[in-house]
Amino acid sequence: MAAHRTLGKPGLDASVPAMANLTEPAPDHAGPEDPVLASYRKSIDNIDAALIHMLAERFRITQAVGEYKATASLPPADPNREARQIARLRSLAVEANLDPEFSEKFIRFVIDEVIRHHEKARNGG
Amino acid sequence: MAAHRTLGKPGLDASVPAMANLTEPAPDHAGPEDPVLASYRKSIDNIDAALIHMLAERFRITQAVGEYKATASLPPADPNREARQIARLRSLAVEANLDPEFSEKFIRFVIDEVIRHHEKARNGG
Repeated sequence: MAAHRTLGKPGLDASVPAMANLTEPAPDHAGPEDPVLASYRKSIDNIDAALIHMLAERFRITQAVGEYKATASLPPADPNREARQIARLRSLAVEANLDPEFSEKFIRFVIDEVIRHHEKARNGG
Repeated sequence: MAAHRTLGKPGLDASVPAMANLTEPAPDHAGPEDPVLASYRKSIDNIDAALIHMLAERFRITQAVGEYKATASLPPADPNREARQIARLRSLAVEANLDPEFSEKFIRFVIDEVIRHHEKARNGG
């Protein structure tokens, strides 16, 4: 693994962080691997794994909510709740220096998926 | 603050967790607040705050990537990298019991936004 990197002139790799070498076995693009880009991408990959696991947990909860709503004959969508969620997340986005328009598109994207799940649950699965 | 909740008959609120009372000042829907739903929603709100902050950090990094790519004359989009990201996140989604189709839609949604940012940076912001 990465033998071409350790043979020959190892001194030339001094600018490449050791972790990037170990965890990025092959370049993502056609040219030689860019160490700056590889390091950024490692951070992005870690954040994406966290996002996927957060979303998985969110859908575990909304699945339980969907089952509860179906049992309690509550409607799948709740426009007042959604308006409050969007307002809150826009405000959090501004504090975190994230485009609030994007945060709203994001939460609507997630809520639309949740409502599809709820409607499926309501129609018996 | 919340004086109307502590006056009168506090014992009637025993079935509602204390935290839900303190942090959910008003019901989200027209009827009386449902304590089961309120508890689920508190978890969803916590996860959404985490998601927004994760996304804010991801865009901080991709902004740096965009500036670096513009300086180094690298193309804004990288289809090979994207294909690898999607395959990896679909696999993580399956492990976490999240619909892999949704995980792919999600990451494409985020990547599309990043590419828009990169093109903007390339055109001088």
